[in-house]
Amino acid sequence: MSLGGDMHALVRRLYPLCRSITGNGVRDTLKIVGEHLDLHVYEVPTGAQVLDWTVPQEWNIRDAYIARDGERVVDFQKLNLHVVGYSVPVHRTMPLAELREHLHTLPNQPDLVPYRTSYYAPTWGFCLAQSTLDQMPDGDYEVVIDSTLAPGSLTYGEVVVPGRSEREILVSAHVCHPSLADDNLSGIAVSARLAAQLLTGDLPHHTFRFVYAPGTIGAIAWLARNEHRVSHIQHGLVVAGVGDGGGPTYKKSRRGDALIDRAMAHVLRHAAPSPTLLDFFPYGYDERQFCSPGFDLGVGLFQRSRYGTFPEYHTSADNLDFIRPEHLASSYRMIAAMIDIVENDWRPVSTSPKGEPQLGRRGLYSALGGDKDGPAKSMAFLWILNLADGRHTLLDIAERAQLPFGVVAEAARLLRNSGLLVEDRAAGRPWVLEGLPAANDS
Amino acid sequence: MSLGGDMHALVRRLYPLCRSITGNGVRDTLKIVGEHLDLHVYEVPTGAQVLDWTVPQEWNIRDAYIARDGERVVDFQKLNLHVVGYSVPVHRTMPLAELREHLHTLPNQPDLVPYRTSYYAPTWGFCLAQSTLDQMPDGDYEVVIDSTLAPGSLTYGEVVVPGRSEREILVSAHVCHPSLADDNLSGIAVSARLAAQLLTGDLPHHTFRFVYAPGTIGAIAWLARNEHRVSHIQHGLVVAGVGDGGGPTYKKSRRGDALIDRAMAHVLRHAAPSPTLLDFFPYGYDERQFCSPGFDLGVGLFQRSRYGTFPEYHTSADNLDFIRPEHLASSYRMIAAMIDIVENDWRPVSTSPKGEPQLGRRGLYSALGGDKDGPAKSMAFLWILNLADGRHTLLDIAERAQLPFGVVAEAARLLRNSGLLVEDRAAGRPWVLEGLPAANDS
Amino acid sequence: MSLGGDMHALVRRLYPLCRSITGNGVRDTLKIVGEHLDLHVYEVPTGAQVLDWTVPQEWNIRDAYIARDGERVVDFQKLNLHVVGYSVPVHRTMPLAELREHLHTLPNQPDLVPYRTSYYAPTWGFCLAQSTLDQMPDGDYEVVIDSTLAPGSLTYGEVVVPGRSEREILVSAHVCHPSLADDNLSGIAVSARLAAQLLTGDLPHHTFRFVYAPGTIGAIAWLARNEHRVSHIQHGLVVAGVGDGGGPTYKKSRRGDALIDRAMAHVLRHAAPSPTLLDFFPYGYDERQFCSPGFDLGVGLFQRSRYGTFPEYHTSADNLDFIRPEHLASSYRMIAAMIDIVENDWRPVSTSPKGEPQLGRRGLYSALGGDKDGPAKSMAFLWILNLADGRHTLLDIAERAQLPFGVVAEAARLLRNSGLLVEDRAAGRPWVLEGLPAANDS
Repeated sequence: MSLGGDMHALVRRLYPLCRSITGNGVRDTLKIVGEHLDLHVYEVPTGAQVLDWTVPQEWNIRDAYIARDGERVVDFQKLNLHVVGYSVPVHRTMPLAELREHLHTLPNQPDLVPYRTSYYAPTWGFCLAQSTLDQMPDGDYEVVIDSTLAPGSLTYGEVVVPGRSEREILVSAHVCHPSLADDNLSGIAVSARLAAQLLTGDLPHHTFRFVYAPGTIGAIAWLARNEHRVSHIQHGLVVAGVGDGGGPTYKKSRRGDALIDRAMAHVLRHAAPSPTLLDFFPYGYDERQFCSPGFDLGVGLFQRSRYGTFPEYHTSADNLDFIRPEHLASSYRMIAAMIDIVENDWRPVSTSPKGEPQLGRRGLYSALGGDKDGPAKSMAFLWILNLADGRHTLLDIAERAQLPFGVVAEAARLLRNSGLLVEDRAAGRPWVLEGLPAANDS
Repeated sequence: MSLGGDMHALVRRLYPLCRSITGNGVRDTLKIVGEHLDLHVYEVPTGAQVLDWTVPQEWNIRDAYIARDGERVVDFQKLNLHVVGYSVPVHRTMPLAELREHLHTLPNQPDLVPYRTSYYAPTWGFCLAQSTLDQMPDGDYEVVIDSTLAPGSLTYGEVVVPGRSEREILVSAHVCHPSLADDNLSGIAVSARLAAQLLTGDLPHHTFRFVYAPGTIGAIAWLARNEHRVSHIQHGLVVAGVGDGGGPTYKKSRRGDALIDRAMAHVLRHAAPSPTLLDFFPYGYDERQFCSPGFDLGVGLFQRSRYGTFPEYHTSADNLDFIRPEHLASSYRMIAAMIDIVENDWRPVSTSPKGEPQLGRRGLYSALGGDKDGPAKSMAFLWILNLADGRHTLLDIAERAQLPFGVVAEAARLLRNSGLLVEDRAAGRPWVLEGLPAANDS
Repeated sequence: MSLGGDMHALVRRLYPLCRSITGNGVRDTLKIVGEHLDLHVYEVPTGAQVLDWTVPQEWNIRDAYIARDGERVVDFQKLNLHVVGYSVPVHRTMPLAELREHLHTLPNQPDLVPYRTSYYAPTWGFCLAQSTLDQMPDGDYEVVIDSTLAPGSLTYGEVVVPGRSEREILVSAHVCHPSLADDNLSGIAVSARLAAQLLTGDLPHHTFRFVYAPGTIGAIAWLARNEHRVSHIQHGLVVAGVGDGGGPTYKKSRRGDALIDRAMAHVLRHAAPSPTLLDFFPYGYDERQFCSPGFDLGVGLFQRSRYGTFPEYHTSADNLDFIRPEHLASSYRMIAAMIDIVENDWRPVSTSPKGEPQLGRRGLYSALGGDKDGPAKSMAFLWILNLADGRHTLLDIAERAQLPFGVVAEAARLLRNSGLLVEDRAAGRPWVLEGLPAANDS
């Protein structure tokens, strides 16, 4: 199956599960994701103090409906978005007038069911289409939510891809949304595929850590349990909403000039005619936690359409038809291109810095002066040689030359093979450990 | 009476007086301004050396006119703009052809009388409407200027509002223009009202010094007499032309990044859809003197319409109808908003910097996830907590969040009351003196 | 004759010569250029190692043609562009089908002959108009190139204008193009005229070095032979294509903020409504060599139209009609204006920094306040006095004031004569040698 098709298939398996910030929906999700990955599952018990927060009671739900005359008008079994997440149990009969206070609709999108939660204020509620509500006659309704809120635990998962260095790249996807395909089964599927790919390839320079945790409280729990490890994280990416055809969108880390910010900006500029590059702001996904001032990690957010800007966002329209294999695949390739930069950037130093080296006798330059393509073909060579003073990395050079990193990296490889470049080991690559052989990039 | 009405009433009282850089017009003006303020009047004698300048002879004028056949064609008693400021006395009869060399008109604005002075080149002249001149037949005219230029003094006034700190905020308005309402009776009235307001309120952090001096030579005389005090001035504002409905306009200090520059820019951006923010240039009002390289103070210029850009500028059309109470009031409020920033900015440090603190259990966050207003309401909280690393002031945060300072300051107050913020006393507020209790901002 | 006429006359004399990167065409060119200049000619022998390159065999050509039935269809004697530069000798008869592989035309500009070379890949070829080729019937042609490639030398010339200081300004023009007027006989003529002018004037501050060398290999040979001297070069300009009416265009040095970059940008902004200012890029003319990372000199490129952007570029249409005396003259004046800045910039310090000095009593200010021209006339005075804190040069001030350097320099001279400015000798002018009297700029 194709790359995109593989990822879409995983999304289809995960779609029906009723996830929330705790409960069996998350466990079942991690079980499926981990089928072909060495995924470790961690449980953090209810009541545990995690940074400023306390792990709440675990929520599980078996059934829920609104029925009239024994007929289900709103049915959790058909769509788990129908229940407000973390609803307390209820089993009552009440007139529509009273029930309305617990009903959520989207009057401007009358056929869609909204997605709502109330994790920390005990309440219950149903979400339904406005068109459904409009057809509900006055009178009494049977209202059932067969849920439990009880001591239990919060669940998160981790996949670690060992690298040459203890320096880490973090990839994070939230796993707390129920039947919403783009937000965030897409992020789960793309990152899991990346993990699988990395596990089967050569040992990377960095250690990669893929974290699958519920939004906010899950990221906070992970940070609380991994505070000792946080200093290893060099670069990180929150992946959310990468199955639609919009954007691409990258929101920079709080630092704004972290290497991942520059690498993602570079990749997106070469991948799309007008990508959206956003400065950090303190709302959104779990980059909020990784970029809180006490951590301030170089972690950005990658999306296709920016969240909240498209009509399907947080509604029943964010379904399996909304995302497409080809978008999952292109999102995958953009992240992979960023990883290529972060893994393989280096700092060239010219061995022939005075005047231009003669490329022609090394077979690196088309010989006839009037060849229209000569300059274009040689552009990367010229830029690299001119900037190979130890103060520029390949990414610096690619940005300055407005050429894709891959083109510059390949040209640099040829120049190094010709003896015209060496690597500045002093400035060196930060991930190369003492005593380990340097990476074989040529 | 309303705020704007009060200030307009003061302008009306001051309007008829014939001010110049010296003389009784300035003294009478300061007497009226000081009626309800503790205004100190200073006299600097003719011949006194003030920086590079020498205080000139004092100029006073009692009457002036051009008459034909005993009838006044141009009459100082009707409008004091008719005489070129600092005109030497004259009592002659002369033909129109000779008189013309002493007449100033505005051919493109034929019904307006221009404003002209000649402080340092002894001469005399009249200003009149071109339409008046066009109706003056050839022949002899009686020309009288009953003025005196004699040893005396230059007069300026000061109002000091004591503060907790010796660090000062300077507010300056020039008092040398005769019957011109916007330039600068508006500046006198607005600043005097600010002084009155500050004197009746709580002790401010800064000491405020309001200076009422003639343009250029007056500011220079003040600087010469106050050189020892200049190092106390932290922030300063020249206020001129704040009664018209244009702008608002702020011209930055020579430093360009003084706190007052950032504060005024912030206020104006939130007060008007497209304020004019100008880099410093060495012509204009008395910011020229305060920003000369030997002083280089953080003093900017606040105006509504930029001087010289509107047809009424320096003409008889800059009269009591040109300015309006509501514009005086809005100018007042913009300066007051700047003072609020300069007085009340502080540098928050989060007590819970790792991950986001849980706002919900502190009653600071609307609990239901789908609440459309929730994110907006919480925006200031999130920005403050994210940037509360001791490297950002509330103004920094307001600018970054594109929120008004007042909204951020109020949110910061709530967060501090909840124990989530403390003030960075080390970076501290520069105006807090040793041994004095810190300000009670909460 | 006029300045422009003089330069155009020199171009006309040089135009017929067949220049290449070696050979007698260069020698004959330098002989003519040196007729009125103290021009030194240097020869670098074939096989000499110059930086990363080796000086090639010397190429000379006496005749070349394509003939059919004894009649020359393409004739080097009529236009030396007809032969690909560095063509190896050939004397054969061949059918048109075979000959075509050696023919170069411009199908989109069918009446123009292109310019082509093949210095380092031994081959031969002819350049001709597409319209000529279209009229050549099939059949056999006599093909003759009477050239020699043999050990010899590469030739370059230098004119040195002594200055007070050993610090140098380099002006470079390439001399390797055959009958192309703008590229680069224009650069040769303008720079030679500048050299002549400097030789007849007062001793300049800097030593000026004018280099006439073949492109790339010539600049590399010069650098190899002058490595010890390179550290003296403070500022440099490559002059190429300065006879057409386009642009002006300035390409900055690799440093980007060298004084010459700022000076040329300043000159061009005041010389033309929308000059083209380009950041450095590592292709183009000999700035490539001067700005290679091992030298990284402050050398930029001055052109009128940017090379490669106009249809006459590198074709037979770049002829004596394409360039005009008035464009040569205006290019000359722009370079002279840059030299004026680099030679005469200084760092003023006010002797009266507190408040504005009174310009009126020094005769530097129009006295009547309402004089419409007063502010404009005094603008340069005000800017200089305000920025005369030892941290700004005259060029800094001119840029900030948006006034031409010449206006600011003249105003500064008047202020210094009035005693209001002194020169900051500590920050000083870098070219003033120990023990030498300072330049007399007033």
